Amino acid sequence: MQTDSLTEEELFCLLKAKRGEDFQYSHILSSMCTTPHPVATKAHSLFMETNLGDPGLFPGTSSLDEEIIRWFANLYQEPSAGGCTTSGGTESNIQVLRFTKASKGSKKPNIIVPASAHFSFEKACGMMDIEMRIAPIDNSYRMDPDVTGELIDKNTCCIVGVAGTTEYGMTDPIPELAKITGQEGVHLHVDAAFGGYVLPFLKNAPSFDFSIPGVDSISVDPHKMGLSTIPSGVLMVRDEKVFCNLLVETPYLTVKQAYSLTGTRPGASIAAAWAVIRYLGIDGYTSLVSGCMENTRRLIEGMEAFGVRRKVTPDVNVATFEHVTVPKPWIVSYTRNGDLRIVCMPHVTRDVVESFLIDFGEFYVPPAH
Amino acid sequence: MQTDSLTEEELFCLLKAKRGEDFQYSHILSSMCTTPHPVATKAHSLFMETNLGDPGLFPGTSSLDEEIIRWFANLYQEPSAGGCTTSGGTESNIQVLRFTKASKGSKKPNIIVPASAHFSFEKACGMMDIEMRIAPIDNSYRMDPDVTGELIDKNTCCIVGVAGTTEYGMTDPIPELAKITGQEGVHLHVDAAFGGYVLPFLKNAPSFDFSIPGVDSISVDPHKMGLSTIPSGVLMVRDEKVFCNLLVETPYLTVKQAYSLTGTRPGASIAAAWAVIRYLGIDGYTSLVSGCMENTRRLIEGMEAFGVRRKVTPDVNVATFEHVTVPKPWIVSYTRNGDLRIVCMPHVTRDVVESFLIDFGEFYVPPAH
Repeated sequence: MQTDSLTEEELFCLLKAKRGEDFQYSHILSSMCTTPHPVATKAHSLFMETNLGDPGLFPGTSSLDEEIIRWFANLYQEPSAGGCTTSGGTESNIQVLRFTKASKGSKKPNIIVPASAHFSFEKACGMMDIEMRIAPIDNSYRMDPDVTGELIDKNTCCIVGVAGTTEYGMTDPIPELAKITGQEGVHLHVDAAFGGYVLPFLKNAPSFDFSIPGVDSISVDPHKMGLSTIPSGVLMVRDEKVFCNLLVETPYLTVKQAYSLTGTRPGASIAAAWAVIRYLGIDGYTSLVSGCMENTRRLIEGMEAFGVRRKVTPDVNVATFEHVTVPKPWIVSYTRNGDLRIVCMPHVTRDVVESFLIDFGEFYVPPAH
Repeated sequence: MQTDSLTEEELFCLLKAKRGEDFQYSHILSSMCTTPHPVATKAHSLFMETNLGDPGLFPGTSSLDEEIIRWFANLYQEPSAGGCTTSGGTESNIQVLRFTKASKGSKKPNIIVPASAHFSFEKACGMMDIEMRIAPIDNSYRMDPDVTGELIDKNTCCIVGVAGTTEYGMTDPIPELAKITGQEGVHLHVDAAFGGYVLPFLKNAPSFDFSIPGVDSISVDPHKMGLSTIPSGVLMVRDEKVFCNLLVETPYLTVKQAYSLTGTRPGASIAAAWAVIRYLGIDGYTSLVSGCMENTRRLIEGMEAFGVRRKVTPDVNVATFEHVTVPKPWIVSYTRNGDLRIVCMPHVTRDVVESFLIDFGEFYVPPAH
């Protein structure tokens, strides 16, 4: 056991070396995380010691938390919507399953998710004894609403549609899903962990928000396209009474009840999310998203010029191609179906795309006819 | 909706004002969080953009994560123990209930917790359909092992003992609990979120770690007495095979399976925990804990000199007294039974204790006889 202590100089020499072993975002084409905006890291440092698990001690930080919820309520076109911040998409999705399961009160609860849903639903369902029914995706990589309707029964507590799927960057047909859930009285949750910071800033993007009457909740992650620090998630709900099902007594804190999943939780990354929202504003995010979409289009065109076909034209800045390998040091990922997947995050600038295409062009050998 | 963006100067002027509305730790006597150590905040900043949810991208950060687990394995006297880092005590406790429930495979699972257990167990049990059986605490505020034994049945998947209770700072009789769980083949989890960074550094402290053969898992929070940043938790397990029950497939990441509860999760606060461990070392923590315990004793003596009786002599740096109010601006808390509770965290220095005692002495009117 290392019992000796290090001097500050030795410590940071070691830490910098360890940090140097990590890959740098400049060559990471696989992640939905990115380098946070400079105002995010600066705000994070300013709020480093705040704990939103005990909000009465941090009324200033808590008010930023509330302002984020109000901002998203307006962005998602339902000013009276409620919400809470979380550690990210997984926690947000767990919270939705917690309250929809409690509200349904079924002994054999089930939810319906698209085949393209994030693996967090499998985790959450396993933990909560919820049956996860999988609706197929059609050849445009979107959830099939007809089959979804057929999967519903009296024990269905929630249907999940995705706005900006992790794998193919597609948005499920939320208006059609909302019609079905409206008729059946089932909660419709939109997992917009990625697309929730993209679609509102795009022209002619598919609808996914509270302007669709049947949408009951939306999750979105500031630590993805929001350029905030990790961990930051937001769960928006049309009617905040849903949280009542989650309240537990919290003795010895400055609030007497809480509905969050975690206890102690950072105010720093929430302040960071607020900072980027107020610094970039709607115009700044519009410009950011526009650049990412432009780079996505350029990447797809560039790859197709080499003869590597796109799998689909995405709704958000995720590009997928038929399976090919890529040269080092580029880090890409592959979908469950084996397709090449590249996320054009803000760190994947036009220069990065061009540089990748040059390297790929030198490396790639088209299959013989 | 605020659509205008702010300049960086305006932004940080606002953020500093908001931060100024928060209470400062100098007068907070109610929290188990504290100002992080300077090396923690510095390390946090250095690792700000790392994501341990995708560890293959961050091999340097991941190796710090692994070194923390090895450090605790040695500290808790079982070098072959495994573990994982988490967002804090609540997530650690949820993970234990996830794998013990899965391993038991009962349709009507139950766990047994002391009446003094943290409210996170209520949350977790509600979410996972686990019956929470409550064992009473005796007049020394420790879990009664005999009653605990009587509450066990074939559906019991876990017994929880606490090392350093949130309310009274007591440690449950872990060796006695271990005898019972050993006989019955039930998992024994020790919630040492607070005490796990205190008891190992104290002479003659109650035993709670893997040196007791029946202890199967221990949770501990670097963001409490570990002086790390929020969020940082550690879950140690005697046999890391327990995690196999939690694995889900994680397509499109650099690892193919994961057992963590959250997805994207910060490397920054984990690097911060590592930094404090290596900077302070065993000697540094011993000295820190010794000071906190000395201040706790001084506070208890000082309050008793005013005629305010202690409720119990605590095992860790949490002092409780018969119910009295305290003058502003001091922030204290009260237990579920209404007792005054003060946590002598490192920011509650000897000067802070003396200053509180002076203010309290001027304010307090003893009840008439």
